[in-house]
Amino acid sequence: MEFRHVFVCVNQRPPGHPMGSCAEKGSRDIYAKLMESIQMDPELFMSVIVTPTGCLGPCGLGPTIVVYPDAVWYGNVRLEDVPEIVNSHLKGGKPVDRLVVSKGKPPGMF
Amino acid sequence: MEFRHVFVCVNQRPPGHPMGSCAEKGSRDIYAKLMESIQMDPELFMSVIVTPTGCLGPCGLGPTIVVYPDAVWYGNVRLEDVPEIVNSHLKGGKPVDRLVVSKGKPPGMF
Repeated sequence: MEFRHVFVCVNQRPPGHPMGSCAEKGSRDIYAKLMESIQMDPELFMSVIVTPTGCLGPCGLGPTIVVYPDAVWYGNVRLEDVPEIVNSHLKGGKPVDRLVVSKGKPPGMF
Repeated sequence: MEFRHVFVCVNQRPPGHPMGSCAEKGSRDIYAKLMESIQMDPELFMSVIVTPTGCLGPCGLGPTIVVYPDAVWYGNVRLEDVPEIVNSHLKGGKPVDRLVVSKGKPPGMF
């Protein structure tokens, strides 16, 4: 299994903030579920790390996740999507196309 | 200039914690200086983003920075090293070898 580094935005803005935030939309639970999935699987434990981050940029598309070195950007991720990301992408090497909002640069970057 | 995504650990542990932390060793100033360098340079502004993170793992080697998609891990970074990282790596595409602690996986990972 190839090494992958998963970054999950857990930025929290106050309720009512015009930008919203990934944490407001449930990203901390997504982070926790991803961590648990990796910790519980010996193969994933040896090849994947997950890191919580501050703002990744595309707040309107959050919860946002980016996976490197592939540079696959996921948006509008829900808690229920975590097993598919884990199995298809992190274990199988195949990104979950329906959740991909950009490859390479972040969505909306020049 | 190629797109690069720079992640800076800004994890803060309390003084006296046996693990130490990147923020305790000055990583928040490093993050701020990197951000300022990118914001002030039109070319970098178009091609590089910088994201603060929670713990990246190799606390003993902190302050820790990882640059993707290259997957270059920097350790023991000091505030004075920022211009060299910006000019050599982010602008010139050549990592600063004397600060590199791993390429690909994080240092110490199986």
